[in-house]
Amino acid sequence: MSTYVVASLCAVTGVTFFIFGALVQQHVSYRKIKSVMLTDPYVYQCRKHIFNALSFLGRVTKGSIINNAKGKSIVTGENNKQFSERQDSVSIFDQFILWSRTRAYKAIMYMTFSVGQEGYPHEEIAHVAGIMKYGFPGMDEIHVYKNFILSYDRRNRIAHWVCEHVKDECLRMRDLKTLHKPNEYLADNTIPPMFSANMRDFRNSDWVGGHLASPQNYKCDILRFMEAYKFPNIVPINRGLKNHIWLRLENYVREMALKFGSVYVYTGPLFMPQRITFRNWSIRHHVMGMNTVAVPTHFFKVIIRDDGEDGDLPLMEGFVVPNADVDKEMDLRSFLCDVHDIEHFAGLKFCDGHQRDPVDLPVNAPSMTDLRGSD
Amino acid sequence: MSTYVVASLCAVTGVTFFIFGALVQQHVSYRKIKSVMLTDPYVYQCRKHIFNALSFLGRVTKGSIINNAKGKSIVTGENNKQFSERQDSVSIFDQFILWSRTRAYKAIMYMTFSVGQEGYPHEEIAHVAGIMKYGFPGMDEIHVYKNFILSYDRRNRIAHWVCEHVKDECLRMRDLKTLHKPNEYLADNTIPPMFSANMRDFRNSDWVGGHLASPQNYKCDILRFMEAYKFPNIVPINRGLKNHIWLRLENYVREMALKFGSVYVYTGPLFMPQRITFRNWSIRHHVMGMNTVAVPTHFFKVIIRDDGEDGDLPLMEGFVVPNADVDKEMDLRSFLCDVHDIEHFAGLKFCDGHQRDPVDLPVNAPSMTDLRGSD
Repeated sequence: MSTYVVASLCAVTGVTFFIFGALVQQHVSYRKIKSVMLTDPYVYQCRKHIFNALSFLGRVTKGSIINNAKGKSIVTGENNKQFSERQDSVSIFDQFILWSRTRAYKAIMYMTFSVGQEGYPHEEIAHVAGIMKYGFPGMDEIHVYKNFILSYDRRNRIAHWVCEHVKDECLRMRDLKTLHKPNEYLADNTIPPMFSANMRDFRNSDWVGGHLASPQNYKCDILRFMEAYKFPNIVPINRGLKNHIWLRLENYVREMALKFGSVYVYTGPLFMPQRITFRNWSIRHHVMGMNTVAVPTHFFKVIIRDDGEDGDLPLMEGFVVPNADVDKEMDLRSFLCDVHDIEHFAGLKFCDGHQRDPVDLPVNAPSMTDLRGSD
Repeated sequence: MSTYVVASLCAVTGVTFFIFGALVQQHVSYRKIKSVMLTDPYVYQCRKHIFNALSFLGRVTKGSIINNAKGKSIVTGENNKQFSERQDSVSIFDQFILWSRTRAYKAIMYMTFSVGQEGYPHEEIAHVAGIMKYGFPGMDEIHVYKNFILSYDRRNRIAHWVCEHVKDECLRMRDLKTLHKPNEYLADNTIPPMFSANMRDFRNSDWVGGHLASPQNYKCDILRFMEAYKFPNIVPINRGLKNHIWLRLENYVREMALKFGSVYVYTGPLFMPQRITFRNWSIRHHVMGMNTVAVPTHFFKVIIRDDGEDGDLPLMEGFVVPNADVDKEMDLRSFLCDVHDIEHFAGLKFCDGHQRDPVDLPVNAPSMTDLRGSD
């Protein structure tokens, strides 16, 4: 063999393995970033920037392999947006695997002459992404639990908001261990004691502890049930409210989940101003115990349900309940509230988290057509 | 040449270029992540996780090239910790460059027989990292400006805290354009109007707008001067306080910066509870205008100065000033306050940001030895 042949052979091998090495490194990085994402919501929020930075040899490709391979399949605008997000977060190596899987599938379909629904293999939905389908309302100190995602307010020692994805599966059966409730709320070690409430703060006070994410939504599993007893999920609530109106509101959420399969629920405290004189408003709320745990003046619940059909936009309902002994016979409908008002006083933004693509989601006027007498 | 030779040549080339490709891909990723980090503080906060995920072919190396190359040089515990952080955030490609630079430097030193101080080339300190040397006190909605980093409280429409690095360079000269102050505060487009204060909220109210980061600290540059007039940096403050005690406190910070080269300053609002009856405390604060901008009951300022010598620990001083017309003759020393109390009521943690390595920094007792009559 001449030297030229050897040299060119080496060059080809070199270039091939250079690209292969870069691909493998990129693939490994993607894998690890994704596993970090499952536990660290901040990394999850920054995923667009990070995945852009990890692009192959620094080049941002506009049209990618999968996109071309899609061929004639028609996708709606909404699906397309979701798709490009999914594709962005896939390494070139994975893209190749997906592409060849699709090709092989097509070839098999062609050979067997069978006609069927064409579909891409669905990726396993990550834990955080599954619960936070409608985005993060705020980004202050996010904590991830098995059932719910929580944003913690260190100044007030209670949560800003708690987001749950209540599913009917867990409501239909009961783990018998969950019949015994714990006597005390549990400390969360990820929050420093100086920024956390404890049992002593609640003793000798006018309020009892209430759950933002209701443990009764998770009675199918003792581990998930117990997580709702952790302190960040507890707020000081009026005893009369907790036992009647608040319980009925939670039951309403469970009924919705049973009826529609699953609902997304945001729950949190509100601090509403009172008028003192003309043009003079002020916010006044009590604080409890040595840790000065804030007692909210109101609570909100925002319920989002998507009926599962692609065309329909999800429906939103907002409730605001005062933290006082409300007449227990009152109709739940009288607590319905414009979601914009909740957003204003809580400083949160629903369906439009930080850095999230804007979803064209109209905030529906209060709709209580599905409300039957509950409890 | 025999086929064996060619085959082994190809194999060697392949392996070499495979590794080279992976290195280049890793290097490019590091570069891009770092450039994202300059503008996105959340990516900066998660840097440990991200850099771990980007490790070469997924392997986390314990002892690295630079570490071995250091040889006999003795480093203190503090320096070592900083160093390992710096090394973690360096791609293997960069590590190789650094290592060979050190080697070349050593060789030159050896050949010229000169004996000198051995030192590593200092990396350019990134903007965010430069200001936030002592960590993020909280992680709610961070905004990066030219002079300062700000954490915004959407519920109260004012900042949680503002962190500045006040340097003497900028205090010694004056851009003449800064003699003309703007008549109105400037809107910040990164904050949605529904979560931002505006000029109408301040009209016909009992308070005026005060700056958390003082524009007088940046009078050397009109662009940086104007940034202190943006709305997130503005809080409702009592006019008498602003013109006397608050101004004297700001002058004290500038004197410290001139004396010690630079100081790090955290400034923010406080909402302090008042006793109503025995065991019954509550927080009461006014809200202004249509946007219900919260009027803080107090303000805090935490000043950190490091004298630049390695052995000394940085010194911390905390001030708390009530948002009222305080007697203008009062001594600044009477507003000194334990930093722990500020941390308790503000829900912040100084010198110990989220995910930051714990720095063994004692919170010094109030020290006002350097306070002379100011203003």
